[in-house]
Amino acid sequence: MAEEDLGRIHTEVDGHLMKIMVDREKKRNSFTPEMMNALGAALTQLDEEPDLWVGVLCAKGDHTTAGLDMPRFFGPGAQRQQRTESQVDPFGLGRKCCKPLVAAVQGITYTIGIEMMLAADIVVAADTARFCQMEARRGIAPFGGAHFRYVHRAGWGNAMYHLLLCDEFDALRAKEIGFVQEVVPAGQQIDRATELAKTIAKNAPLGIQATKQSALTYVEEGEAAAIAAIPEFRERLLATEDSREGIQSFIERREANFKGR
Amino acid sequence: MAEEDLGRIHTEVDGHLMKIMVDREKKRNSFTPEMMNALGAALTQLDEEPDLWVGVLCAKGDHTTAGLDMPRFFGPGAQRQQRTESQVDPFGLGRKCCKPLVAAVQGITYTIGIEMMLAADIVVAADTARFCQMEARRGIAPFGGAHFRYVHRAGWGNAMYHLLLCDEFDALRAKEIGFVQEVVPAGQQIDRATELAKTIAKNAPLGIQATKQSALTYVEEGEAAAIAAIPEFRERLLATEDSREGIQSFIERREANFKGR
Amino acid sequence: MAEEDLGRIHTEVDGHLMKIMVDREKKRNSFTPEMMNALGAALTQLDEEPDLWVGVLCAKGDHTTAGLDMPRFFGPGAQRQQRTESQVDPFGLGRKCCKPLVAAVQGITYTIGIEMMLAADIVVAADTARFCQMEARRGIAPFGGAHFRYVHRAGWGNAMYHLLLCDEFDALRAKEIGFVQEVVPAGQQIDRATELAKTIAKNAPLGIQATKQSALTYVEEGEAAAIAAIPEFRERLLATEDSREGIQSFIERREANFKGR
Repeated sequence: MAEEDLGRIHTEVDGHLMKIMVDREKKRNSFTPEMMNALGAALTQLDEEPDLWVGVLCAKGDHTTAGLDMPRFFGPGAQRQQRTESQVDPFGLGRKCCKPLVAAVQGITYTIGIEMMLAADIVVAADTARFCQMEARRGIAPFGGAHFRYVHRAGWGNAMYHLLLCDEFDALRAKEIGFVQEVVPAGQQIDRATELAKTIAKNAPLGIQATKQSALTYVEEGEAAAIAAIPEFRERLLATEDSREGIQSFIERREANFKGR
Repeated sequence: MAEEDLGRIHTEVDGHLMKIMVDREKKRNSFTPEMMNALGAALTQLDEEPDLWVGVLCAKGDHTTAGLDMPRFFGPGAQRQQRTESQVDPFGLGRKCCKPLVAAVQGITYTIGIEMMLAADIVVAADTARFCQMEARRGIAPFGGAHFRYVHRAGWGNAMYHLLLCDEFDALRAKEIGFVQEVVPAGQQIDRATELAKTIAKNAPLGIQATKQSALTYVEEGEAAAIAAIPEFRERLLATEDSREGIQSFIERREANFKGR
Repeated sequence: MAEEDLGRIHTEVDGHLMKIMVDREKKRNSFTPEMMNALGAALTQLDEEPDLWVGVLCAKGDHTTAGLDMPRFFGPGAQRQQRTESQVDPFGLGRKCCKPLVAAVQGITYTIGIEMMLAADIVVAADTARFCQMEARRGIAPFGGAHFRYVHRAGWGNAMYHLLLCDEFDALRAKEIGFVQEVVPAGQQIDRATELAKTIAKNAPLGIQATKQSALTYVEEGEAAAIAAIPEFRERLLATEDSREGIQSFIERREANFKGR
């Protein structure tokens, strides 16, 4: 009897970069509960290890994901998943990853694939990418945050267009409405995402993390909270070794060599 | 003595669709208090009747509306309008319609015309459409929500551009800043809006309504509230007949036949 | 011994317009604490004098600004700047200017240059404009509001792209993400900004200010607060002389002549 293919999440560390690859290629990377947990664990590792500065989230094969493997989540015998509160949530609905995350997508990128990509920071799409938030076509609605992430990215009208029609849209449209930052020929999306991640990793990691965290404060708590947060992170950053290295490298007209301290 | 033309709101039900047409064509559909009340009543009917799933809001003739019929609202002898709190507000400032609303606009679409279109969900514009939020040119300011809907849709800079200049802009610009989702040749805007409404009506109505309602929660109360709302609507939708029909139709590889239960 | 060039802020009043020009051209307009204070004073004057209706913020020479003159702000001997709470803050983090502000930018427009431009209302960019939020490249992070203004304007993905990569982007990209409203050939940006300001100054100033103030209410306090503010500013504006002049000029088919009363 063949072993069930429940999918895997491969991780690979290269310097300050962590590459996280979804792999259940034969099933178009449709997510099992096991994969979701493993992805949460990988993102938690990225978030917690001080020497990991940037993550790349990608998927094996021609397609990002066909969505949830519904029977394994909701079918008879499915174990009800308890979200582990202490783990980073791939949908950004619970604990968030405070390190930058660059996502690469290609081909079929349906439902939760869009929601996880929008919960990341920067998205590189292959020109083959096809997006569809089709839950309402199947009798339900998006449960992974699409209902507010679409509105944040695209504004009410464009958000409602795709959420209510459940239409399929392509990479150029996704770029137009701010879901995707770069569109590249298929096959280059992971390399390009990695390149962007490496550029980010050259910047001061504490400065980058403070930027992301304080932007999250804005998104979660509004403008007044985002303004109130400035003095604290300003003092914290001005006191770092990296801030001195930044000024020194500027004076010496050389590239800075940041340590994350 | 000729009877005064105070305008009409025609409504027409076709299956799960409700078409709502503004008609005071000879006065370029400028709104009287009577029309505003009738429009509120029509939207309330759409919101309340379970068998109505999607609305189409449109206007008769070459122009959407020249705006308010000012003397009838503010002139001597004008009766002060009391907003009926229990009725759906066409501007979305009071009670909101929780069913999807697709608007079609053409030609002159001034002041309240823009505000009502932005209070709808999806907008199809004829290529003749001309927009102008001109209140400050006339000594006052927009009172129907433009001051915040422009900012939500277009961001501060683009919003201030049109709100402070009171310039006229066309359908392509309106699409660029997210006010309009599709631009079509003049004369096709109502048909195309109806087509979109029919596509929406094929999706599970409870899923669609939950999506719109939870997106409204985000807009009104922010991200944390939008996240907190998920478990409730998730449980509610997973327990519907339509969610079972969705899975069944998927297994049987046929179109789903939703009932709104 | 040559006198130190600490920079100047020139102001010039032309009718209801106030032009504010940053000038430390030989140092690419890098800001000293003295310039920052003088800019705050100029914006406070614009905000407070009833006959000033619109401001134009611009910079002398080929470049908007290279950013802060770091040694003068953070170096040894730098006096710690106390933000004067009673003055308008050029970054819009404290007291805000309630009059419209049109900014013109050109060439190098780095760090605080972007932040001040985003704290203004409308931006005209020369086609030479080059933007870079490069603080994290130098070991720190943006302290002037970029972390939330980018997100507001461009949405999470595009904001993170530029904030985390610290890349340089041009005027067309800035327009694409809503940072800039018009791009003009270099040399025309100040004239064009002045032209826009003059158009705004033709509109009823109290209507314009109410529009900006109520839009700020939305940004600071959310949709419910923006809706709750309507009746007050509606009553206030309908009672002004300018609102009567607006209706009268409409009836007489002539341009309105507003007084700001």
